[in-house]
Amino acid sequence: MPPKPKILDRRLVAESHLFRIEQVDLEFANGSRRTYERIPGGADSVMIVPMLDAETVLLIREYGAGTDRYELGFPKGVVEPGEEPIAAANREIQEEIGYAARELRIIDRVSLVPGYIQHHSLIVLAQGLYAQRLPGDEPEPIEVVPWHLSNLDALLARDDFDEARSIAALFLAMRALRI
Amino acid sequence: MPPKPKILDRRLVAESHLFRIEQVDLEFANGSRRTYERIPGGADSVMIVPMLDAETVLLIREYGAGTDRYELGFPKGVVEPGEEPIAAANREIQEEIGYAARELRIIDRVSLVPGYIQHHSLIVLAQGLYAQRLPGDEPEPIEVVPWHLSNLDALLARDDFDEARSIAALFLAMRALRI
Repeated sequence: MPPKPKILDRRLVAESHLFRIEQVDLEFANGSRRTYERIPGGADSVMIVPMLDAETVLLIREYGAGTDRYELGFPKGVVEPGEEPIAAANREIQEEIGYAARELRIIDRVSLVPGYIQHHSLIVLAQGLYAQRLPGDEPEPIEVVPWHLSNLDALLARDDFDEARSIAALFLAMRALRI
Repeated sequence: MPPKPKILDRRLVAESHLFRIEQVDLEFANGSRRTYERIPGGADSVMIVPMLDAETVLLIREYGAGTDRYELGFPKGVVEPGEEPIAAANREIQEEIGYAARELRIIDRVSLVPGYIQHHSLIVLAQGLYAQRLPGDEPEPIEVVPWHLSNLDALLARDDFDEARSIAALFLAMRALRI
């Protein structure tokens, strides 16, 4: 593997309420130069795979502003400043699905679009669920969809279960659980 | 599932060479209103899972400007205007790994970050590889890394094989191949 490209210059080229876009001038080890754009991004987020029982996951159906449609996927959210990722995961499931978990563990850390987004997300497996709700800031109640993993093919065939991170989280959780 | 939120207004709020950021004012079915930001995005891209033999995938190691490090993952790229996705997949592997494929099929279509990115990517399984190279526009030669799937645990444990889309593509390909 060559040494990392040298960053010759970087500058903010666009900014909105949520996003900053940087241009980066790079010199690769072989001397070639490129200018790339990237979205630098703060702390890791969490995505949680909540196990209702040994073979049932809880999915949520939520409007995705990016795709402009309702998407089926796992609960997720940002880790607040000073918050531990595991605490953030337990808070998010209380807000989004109305359960807390007795056992939470990080099973992977994934990037979303490493070519242009810096952000990473921790995949957290949640087991030992018990009913407990925290108020969230969602614009409308979130529909919770239990899915038995014996119907995995039907889930993967659905058009609205299409987020790469949710698909990866599902397979990683099944592997961690030896399902 | 409620009807989709009504889009009350949308406007371009930031723009760079590569990205456009839109603000969208939404009214949900229950009357609550939110303003979200999204990155609208063109045609589907392709990510290819190239099978060197029945149980060996070909990965590439490439610099990711988003994460500012070398990442291990599957070849990918944009579908050019007027190009069929399957042709794009076959072109990308010739450019990035120096193989063409006799059999290519789309096994899934995934979103990257449905909360704020519109873009989707087609996952293409490539079998029947034969050596054939096309020139690409990469800044440096891409390292090709064959990986035998009997070592799946070791691959998943690597820090640099972390893109959610590559992880999802790997599991989806294994499922399509009944590995």
